[in-house]
Amino acid sequence: MGKLLVVGSVALDSVKTPFGEVVEAVGGSATFFCIAASYFTDVQLVAVVGEDFSPEHLTALQRDRVDLNGLERSSGRTFRWRGEYSHKLNEAKTLDTQLNVLETFSPTIPESYRAPSQLFLANIDPDLQLRVLGQVKRPSVVALDTMNFWIEGKIEALRTVLKEADILIINDGEAQALGDNRNLVQVSRIIRSLGPKTLIIKRGEYGVVMFHGDAVFALPAYPLEHLKDPTGAGDSFAGGFMGFLASASALDDQSLRQAVVYGSVMASFAVQSFSVDRLASLTDEDVKKRYMDFSRLTTFQV
Amino acid sequence: MGKLLVVGSVALDSVKTPFGEVVEAVGGSATFFCIAASYFTDVQLVAVVGEDFSPEHLTALQRDRVDLNGLERSSGRTFRWRGEYSHKLNEAKTLDTQLNVLETFSPTIPESYRAPSQLFLANIDPDLQLRVLGQVKRPSVVALDTMNFWIEGKIEALRTVLKEADILIINDGEAQALGDNRNLVQVSRIIRSLGPKTLIIKRGEYGVVMFHGDAVFALPAYPLEHLKDPTGAGDSFAGGFMGFLASASALDDQSLRQAVVYGSVMASFAVQSFSVDRLASLTDEDVKKRYMDFSRLTTFQV
Repeated sequence: MGKLLVVGSVALDSVKTPFGEVVEAVGGSATFFCIAASYFTDVQLVAVVGEDFSPEHLTALQRDRVDLNGLERSSGRTFRWRGEYSHKLNEAKTLDTQLNVLETFSPTIPESYRAPSQLFLANIDPDLQLRVLGQVKRPSVVALDTMNFWIEGKIEALRTVLKEADILIINDGEAQALGDNRNLVQVSRIIRSLGPKTLIIKRGEYGVVMFHGDAVFALPAYPLEHLKDPTGAGDSFAGGFMGFLASASALDDQSLRQAVVYGSVMASFAVQSFSVDRLASLTDEDVKKRYMDFSRLTTFQV
Repeated sequence: MGKLLVVGSVALDSVKTPFGEVVEAVGGSATFFCIAASYFTDVQLVAVVGEDFSPEHLTALQRDRVDLNGLERSSGRTFRWRGEYSHKLNEAKTLDTQLNVLETFSPTIPESYRAPSQLFLANIDPDLQLRVLGQVKRPSVVALDTMNFWIEGKIEALRTVLKEADILIINDGEAQALGDNRNLVQVSRIIRSLGPKTLIIKRGEYGVVMFHGDAVFALPAYPLEHLKDPTGAGDSFAGGFMGFLASASALDDQSLRQAVVYGSVMASFAVQSFSVDRLASLTDEDVKKRYMDFSRLTTFQV
């Protein structure tokens, strides 16, 4: 049976927030995604690192349910990102980006990965996302992320990917840019006419909204007293969401809602530490308990 | 038996949004509050208008369950506010404020209003809020609103009112200013140490969070395709919230949660038109249906 495949980035992040800082800690979209998803299902990862990616770095990704055969090692240095968050914590100020091995990365999907059950195309160049789609047997679910950089700079390639996508997971600023509109309901209609039947809009500290068929589902973020670093929250959300869906028996409205909650659970853990420290050290009990916390947070009598 | 008493403003609002404009339409915190609350309970209103407040203006307030004996008419002109919203709709730009009769307003509570079951002190000078408290027998619930202007300019009087309050209903910017902190969980602890056992933080298009005892309840706003004018949303929320509470048998966690939903229901109607047009013309069926819409918006399987 096919597995959940993710194609994205593995990075060394240097991050400063009002609550501390880390230097060259393991990060990247595929990293957060596959760790979060591994609590629910088996994951196959396709990404690239450089020669400087040490065995210590690698341990973050070495998990029972994560298949690293698709992690390519290229000559050169690993992708690096350096950023800073103010007290508002909602937007990173990028101080430095070094693409390094990402610059010439062209994802090659290993033979054993070519019939995934589900595929997540993390935020990379839409041309690369298309190249991935060309190498795999159509999975039952294709989900993708993107960013304003591609919406502004590669809209045609992005439109082609969107036609192939079932689920688009983006943040509110990106949704408003892609839909060229400020109203989320109108945005959802415009974006879903481009392809994805399901649109998930991440709103940071305010939670997430999902449009699917005629249904709308909104979930607040979990109010945390101690946040350390929002880096990777969105990819952890996607990992929990896709991981749960891959383990669910059906792709109906109820499963999608539960997947949104599990995504939010994983995001809420990701922001409680720098890098993947908290996200990577959870028990199934932690995950279940936080899911119940979300239930208590949102339940009211009808 | 005592009734729900509100002390606040009645205004003539001139509002421009990207979706239209009105000139000198009936508004004000007490207006939105008492119309919203009147769907749930009997309301007594204390406010002041000027000689220019016409019989046509008055019809907006004349409702079966609203007692207008406390609506004072003073010589001079009615309080006027003129504002504009951009496409973001989250913050009004005040173009003009004419206090007029509000400038010398000192609320006198009619004899028949002096034993309210519940009291809502809308956003007015905390010294006036204190004067109201001095004139009534302690109701079972005292709730209040305030704004940054008083947090910055009259913090001592405000602290005295807060000591007497059971419930504080403010927006997120005000909560952060009053708690001098950006983290909502920390803010809730700081503010609740000042008096109110229950803190409700309104977050505009993102919904509302309530801290009560050890419980946190968060409700997203209802995603509307067509918003006309956010003016009065917060006071309509307070009206639905307090109106439902006044009609509820207990003041427990479940009732408070339901009250937050009914408050959000009323706010969602208020923003669908200018002034009180939509808010004032609802059926009980409309209210019930929107409540169920909120349930569908937020429900997931546990």
